[in-house]
This record gives sequence, structure tokens and C-alpha cells, in this order.
Amino acid sequence: MSLLVIGTVAFDAIETPFGKTDKIVGGAATFASLAASYFYNKTKIVAVVGDDFPQSFIKDFNNHHIDTEGLQIKAGEKSFFWSGKYHNDMNTRDTLITELNVLADFDPIIPENYQDCEYLMLGNLTPQVQQTVINRLKNRPKMIVMDTMNFWMDIALDDLLATIKMVDLLTINDAEARQLSGEYSLVKAANKILTMGPKYLIIKKGEHGALLFGEGKIFAAPALPLAEVFDPTGAGDTFAGGFIGYMAKIGTVNFNNMKNAIIFGSALASFCVEKFGTEKIVNLSQEEIAARVQEFVSLSKFEIA
Amino acid sequence: MSLLVIGTVAFDAIETPFGKTDKIVGGAATFASLAASYFYNKTKIVAVVGDDFPQSFIKDFNNHHIDTEGLQIKAGEKSFFWSGKYHNDMNTRDTLITELNVLADFDPIIPENYQDCEYLMLGNLTPQVQQTVINRLKNRPKMIVMDTMNFWMDIALDDLLATIKMVDLLTINDAEARQLSGEYSLVKAANKILTMGPKYLIIKKGEHGALLFGEGKIFAAPALPLAEVFDPTGAGDTFAGGFIGYMAKIGTVNFNNMKNAIIFGSALASFCVEKFGTEKIVNLSQEEIAARVQEFVSLSKFEIA
Repeated sequence: MSLLVIGTVAFDAIETPFGKTDKIVGGAATFASLAASYFYNKTKIVAVVGDDFPQSFIKDFNNHHIDTEGLQIKAGEKSFFWSGKYHNDMNTRDTLITELNVLADFDPIIPENYQDCEYLMLGNLTPQVQQTVINRLKNRPKMIVMDTMNFWMDIALDDLLATIKMVDLLTINDAEARQLSGEYSLVKAANKILTMGPKYLIIKKGEHGALLFGEGKIFAAPALPLAEVFDPTGAGDTFAGGFIGYMAKIGTVNFNNMKNAIIFGSALASFCVEKFGTEKIVNLSQEEIAARVQEFVSLSKFEIA
Repeated sequence: MSLLVIGTVAFDAIETPFGKTDKIVGGAATFASLAASYFYNKTKIVAVVGDDFPQSFIKDFNNHHIDTEGLQIKAGEKSFFWSGKYHNDMNTRDTLITELNVLADFDPIIPENYQDCEYLMLGNLTPQVQQTVINRLKNRPKMIVMDTMNFWMDIALDDLLATIKMVDLLTINDAEARQLSGEYSLVKAANKILTMGPKYLIIKKGEHGALLFGEGKIFAAPALPLAEVFDPTGAGDTFAGGFIGYMAKIGTVNFNNMKNAIIFGSALASFCVEKFGTEKIVNLSQEEIAARVQEFVSLSKFEIA
């Protein structure tokens, strides 16, 4: 059994009020698989890059016990590239450049020895490609988590709805939950989205934490209040990767385990934003993670007699 | 010993997407003292109304064991009146009418038998009037909680800062914390505000809950996710009243007790928004409150092995 992560492996160039980077490695599958690897050592990725992608980073994946057999390297082509600039509030950003490159005709080929996949993380990508991955797995995974964004609601809603129908858990942010459901109240939005297929829904609220809906219950997880958010890029992917990595480690899919998975995912995401790109999450110790999780415990624990 | 609540006792006329009201009773001291009364039965108010204020509502106060000796009734004058209209998101509103009436020259007279006050709730009012109340108490209360709003930051900042310096705990919302501190990060904002006098700070984030800062610690309380917010008027005052009422009941001022006080205050506020004005919170049972508090427990509880 294994955890399969699909998504982009790419280059980002980021500008924040704290500084700017040249092209650095980013992408949903990059952040998610690195985060998952701290909890689960049979993580595998399916993604595509050009031959401009650094071998040294593939080594980083492998050092994290991430299987890169499904990482296609297209000779003579260039990796997906995104460049963006964050505003002072760090909550809004402008996209400066999007070069699809190899992503334009990405065919997600599943290596034969990936067919033992029991946990599937569909990182943000064209819903059509996400769906192809599900269809190419011979056995339906025990848990399929899907991340997506407003962009696909705008331009590929039918595909998106068809894919959402096939997954167990959807992660989107609050604005996207409102857009997808047409409801302002997040409770009403969640109830509506839970009729579209998924049994569980996570609404990500950035600095306000996250809400988990499912089994007729709601769980509210706080975000760690941070003095400084250095670079929010990849925080959502890191959260999702930490979440599913923890679920794969525990091995039983239920609401109670998902509550803890959200805390572990949030802890990983809180590291992610401390430095540019993957700089922080590529090199964490289990002790650092355990200490950060304890911060979440003290942050939200109270005892009513 | 007793709990003194100062603030407005007034009329509101409210329009929300769910309906509209004629003049109904509102005001910070109204909501706060009613909320406090569920936890503490020596609650007293200082406020001013005109002789248009209904005797029946004064009876409601007294039925809640709220001492109204300090409620001045000005013959031939009219009570403070506010009218507002909420937008569809229920988070923003337009003020339609503000008639100060008796509030214009409110002199907060403290009855002699209020001098046993150990807990003081300064509901939103001119900071100058809030300060006068502190100065007129012969003994400094064990705990002074102050609520205020951006309006006073705009037009009476010096008075506001002088009053803030005298209190133990300040409650404001996130936008106000940013305005008062000039810092975007709420952690930085809180650190700055805690140098202005108060030992504790509560940042109210509406549907995202509240943050408590003090003693070098942070507590994040969730808000109850609600399918419908019928009328948010008075929710902040209800929260503050429930908070200080619970603190007065417990009798020991520390961070740990404040965490529970925030949960009880949030529970009361979650009732407040279910109906117009005070309609819901004027008539709650202890059983209903206990059940609602348990909803907060299940909402936020997780156990990391």
C-alpha cells in the first residue's frame, strides 16, 4: 500500500514585502509530497517537468523516500512556471507570469508499481487530469482527497463537478466554498457541497484556521497566529499533504482521525510560510513538528468543568 | 462585591435580509448585563434613558436580578436611538440614523451601594465617560474590561489611549486591532496593544472566533458555525457581558479562567444572533446554555496521542 500524490512540480518566482526570489522549485505535488513524507514513507508522485528541472531536487524527493518513478521528464521542454507578487496583507496576490510549458499536454501515466495506492491526493490541476488518474487506478483507493481552486469553477465547472463526485474529501477555501455552492453561510455551503459527492469537506480559512464537515459533525481547527508570514506560496498544498500523509500513517478513515490530521497538516503549513518556497519544509525534524503540534494543543485547549 | 456594567441602554431599529424591526430595546449595557446575569446575580448597571423607555423592560432587567438603581431616567427626554441596515453578508452594515438624545450629556453617576464593584465592564461609549466611571469608584475593581470601537480611534484617540491605560482587558475586533496598532499581523498588533496598558487583549473575529492574548500566551476560540445569522446587533456586547459575568462568578482573574469565559461569552453571543435584538437572550435557560457550551467543546476538541 502507498500514498499517491498528483499535481504540479514546477518553478515559482515570488515577490513578497520581505523580498523576492529567482526561479525556485514549487508546485502542488512538491509541497504536498514533502509534507506527507514526514508522516508516511511510501509516498509516490505523478507529475511532469522539463529537462530544466534540477536533478538535485529529485534527489531531495528521494531523500524524503518519495518515489519519483512517476515523475515524467520531457527532453527539450520546459517545466511549468508561475510568478506572482503578494500584496502587503499577504492574503491577496497578483499573478505576473503563467507559462504552462510541459503542463499543457500532461498525460498522467501511472507506473505499474503505483497500483498499490490506497491514499490518493489530487493536487490542484485541471479536473480532467485529476479524473484520469482516478480512472487509471485499477482499485479504487481507500481515500481520495481533492484540492482545487476557483479558476476551475470559472472555466471547467462541468468537469470539476464530475470529478468532485468521485472523491471522498474536497479541500477548498472559504471564498471557493461560497462560489461553488452559491451560499454565503459556510454551514449552508458545506451542506450543499456534501450533496455533490464528497463525504467530507475541509474549508481552509488561512489565518483563521480550517473547518472540517462530515458525518453530521463540524470540527474547527485554529491556525497558529504568526507574527510574520514570509511567503504563503504552497501553504495549502503543504496542509493537504500533511493531512493525507497523517491519514495514510493512521490507516483508518474517520472524522476523529481527520481532526488530528488537520492539526498535523496545519503544523506543516505553519512551517511552510516561514521561508520562501520549500526552503523550510524540505528540512524539518520530527522534534520540530512535535513541538509545533503542541503549540496547536495549547492554543486551542480549554476545559469546562 | 458586584459586577458593574456601564454602556448604552437604547432603542435600535434594524433591517436585515430576514426582516426589519420597529424601535426595539438595544444598547451595549442592555446586551452585556443580560448576558452577565446568566452567570452572576449581582450585576448592576449605570446608564441613561429618556422617559420613552418602557417600564416593562426595566422589569426584565430586574427579573434577571440586574440592579437598575444606576439607570437614570430623564423626564421629558428621549433615549438614544440607532438605526442600521445590514448587507447580505451580515458582516457590514450602514448606519441610517443616530440620535444621541440623552446620551449627549451623559454623566455616569455611581450610586453609593455600587461601590462594592469588583468587576467593571465598560461597554462601548465615549472613552471620557468610561474613564469617569473608573475615577468615581473609590476602590479600583479587581478586573476592568473595556470595549470600544474604531469610531473613537478616529475622533478621540488621546482620550481613548488614556482610558485604555487604566484597564485590565481590552476587547476590539481585528480591523480595530490593526487600526489601533498600525500592524497588520494580529500577533504584532496584540504585542503592541499590550504595551499600551492592558494585561490582556481579546481580538473578536466574528464568524472566525476570538483570540485572547496575555501572560505571554495565546488562546484561539472558535465561533459556532451557524447556518443563519438573523441579526448580529449586540453580539459583541453579549460576548463581553457573558465573559465578565463568568469571570465574576469564578472570582479569580487569570488566563486559564478567561479561556472558559470566552467560551461562555461566545455561547451567549451565538444565541444573540438567532433573533432580533435581545429577543433570544432575554429568555434563556441554564440547560440551553450548557448544551450550547458543549457544542463548542465538540467543535474544537481533538486529542493528539
